[in-house]
Amino acid sequence: MKFSIKRTAFIQGINMVSRAISSKTTIPILTGLKLTASEEGLTLTGSDADVSIQTIIDSADEDNELTVSEPGSIVLPARFFSGIVKKLPDEKMTLSVTNGFQTEITSGTSSFTINGLDAADYPHLPEINNDNEISLSGDVFKEIINQTVLAVSNQESRPILTGVHFILKDQTLFAVATDSHRLSQRKVELPDNQGEYDVIIPGSSLRELSKMISDDTENVKMKISENQVLFTIGNTFFYSRLLEGTYPDTSRLIPKDSETDVQFDAHELLGAIERASLLSHESRNNVVKLTINASDKKVTISGNSPDVGNVEEDVDTNSLSGNDLEISFNPDYMKDALGAFGHSMINVSFTSPLRPFTLVPSEDGENFIELITPVRTF
Amino acid sequence: MKFSIKRTAFIQGINMVSRAISSKTTIPILTGLKLTASEEGLTLTGSDADVSIQTIIDSADEDNELTVSEPGSIVLPARFFSGIVKKLPDEKMTLSVTNGFQTEITSGTSSFTINGLDAADYPHLPEINNDNEISLSGDVFKEIINQTVLAVSNQESRPILTGVHFILKDQTLFAVATDSHRLSQRKVELPDNQGEYDVIIPGSSLRELSKMISDDTENVKMKISENQVLFTIGNTFFYSRLLEGTYPDTSRLIPKDSETDVQFDAHELLGAIERASLLSHESRNNVVKLTINASDKKVTISGNSPDVGNVEEDVDTNSLSGNDLEISFNPDYMKDALGAFGHSMINVSFTSPLRPFTLVPSEDGENFIELITPVRTF
Repeated sequence: MKFSIKRTAFIQGINMVSRAISSKTTIPILTGLKLTASEEGLTLTGSDADVSIQTIIDSADEDNELTVSEPGSIVLPARFFSGIVKKLPDEKMTLSVTNGFQTEITSGTSSFTINGLDAADYPHLPEINNDNEISLSGDVFKEIINQTVLAVSNQESRPILTGVHFILKDQTLFAVATDSHRLSQRKVELPDNQGEYDVIIPGSSLRELSKMISDDTENVKMKISENQVLFTIGNTFFYSRLLEGTYPDTSRLIPKDSETDVQFDAHELLGAIERASLLSHESRNNVVKLTINASDKKVTISGNSPDVGNVEEDVDTNSLSGNDLEISFNPDYMKDALGAFGHSMINVSFTSPLRPFTLVPSEDGENFIELITPVRTF
Repeated sequence: MKFSIKRTAFIQGINMVSRAISSKTTIPILTGLKLTASEEGLTLTGSDADVSIQTIIDSADEDNELTVSEPGSIVLPARFFSGIVKKLPDEKMTLSVTNGFQTEITSGTSSFTINGLDAADYPHLPEINNDNEISLSGDVFKEIINQTVLAVSNQESRPILTGVHFILKDQTLFAVATDSHRLSQRKVELPDNQGEYDVIIPGSSLRELSKMISDDTENVKMKISENQVLFTIGNTFFYSRLLEGTYPDTSRLIPKDSETDVQFDAHELLGAIERASLLSHESRNNVVKLTINASDKKVTISGNSPDVGNVEEDVDTNSLSGNDLEISFNPDYMKDALGAFGHSMINVSFTSPLRPFTLVPSEDGENFIELITPVRTF
């Protein structure tokens, strides 16, 4: 195996697949990065057994300055190899497997010889035998992930809740996540009939995937087999295992009616919650209180810590209707929820101090809803 | 006590004195930030007992928008108070001590009440009774610190070596640091007779001080008492304790003659050392070898790790004279040393494989010298 390549193109590929490589793995060969050179290009693979990422650097793309003079495969120690490639002195570099699995890397007057591993021992990537492929624009898919993954549980006690539930049915993609204290749900209509699915994708995989979707990403394709999902972004393939089990029915959790409705600027409300949380974080039970005085049209946020002090702040509202209310909640859930709305206007609907309340965008409120369960403080 | 102030000006002052405040202190009141308001301005003080920083926000400077309506003092929990001031909604804020040590902070519609401590319990800053003051331009003083502090020891076994030795004599300021494996020494001629000193300043204090010297810093003044040093930068006062004891005589460590002399571009040599250290870091004895072939005018850097592999690289030289040599050293010492030269040309002078070698700038080589002790590898 022997090839030469432009270093920046190689580094980009290495960074991509390195997201899947963990030094903490119990399978030694997975600390390595697999390289396969063929006439068509150079294939890089990284995996931690749960997630695998493969990317192809195309020979036909002149920007890569890739010349494969001898096809072949090798596995190289990932962290260390990536460190070398990034530090090499010249714009170009040459890599050749010389003697057994010994690999020589040269650039300028610098020459490294490192010990590789047999690529035949590297695990095979999952096979996805499914012609049915969903295709979504990059920005929409990234939005779906970011709006739902925030409500995923990070407790291993109920593994199924560490994933996002994706349902495709009747030309609608439906994504929902809940950690049983809060819930986040997003709906997207698909342009044409793209089949039916019902899968649970690990939140950690989606977080990694989301980082790989840039403003340049035109679309993300998604293909599902029995226990794996494959996302395709350009020349890069992202495999993740699916979570097994039945996701709880979340449809009944969302209240149908409300007693008090307030319209806020999400960003302004976030500021007030952040300030109140400075105090609640110093307290053992991390709770912030929202007080609605319907006749005075006044909303007050307050936080308090017996050791340190207290804070109170009036928040502007765009409209306010319904009953007076005093409700307490974990400000960190509220911060996550509000962060997903950016600077837009939102409608917050309450039923009673101990019933979950909802946040939806004031415009297009059908397709995105967040729900937070309050905290009993009396 | 009551004042109102522009928040950005206050934050700047808080950031300055917070450098001295540690949450790990054993003296509870030192986790606080002391505020003293008077007609002239607002004085902020932070301290960890070793280092104290005081800064004055001047009422006369209109940019600060400072109005003191009631003079007084209070100590507020630093980390927490700083978090509040940074998050407040409005450009301006008002602080008033209301009831005992309770302090109210308001900005926009937000109102915090936090518990303060009695400023009378805050330790007094050291008194420096010395009219003799050295003054140096900010950039020169920062350079002196950065060029010497890199060789300071971080081992508490010989506390005296954790400081930089400053000697002022015959209108020359002389700064030297060594951890017994390497040494760094800088000389600066002072414009006029500024007295005589011989003190050891903790490296950790100098590192903090260096961060406070910006491109805007016109000059740094230095005043010394029996066991304290006071640096003045504009409206900010930086106090540090001095190290007690006798610093070892370092003048005899620097070799007077050399057998091999090479001129390098410091930045290019640094690149080669960094690459070689990728391998040496994987090895138990972290050593890089430099081989000089005087007849071929060739210098080679090599590193090797039995587990991972090896690297070899030829380094360009500007001139090379003297004997052949093979010498091994810790690449991390070499990286620190080379980093202090930036992109300039340097002269490296060797005597023998087991004797220390020196690095000096090719121009103005009198005033800055670094010395590294090699490692025996055979």
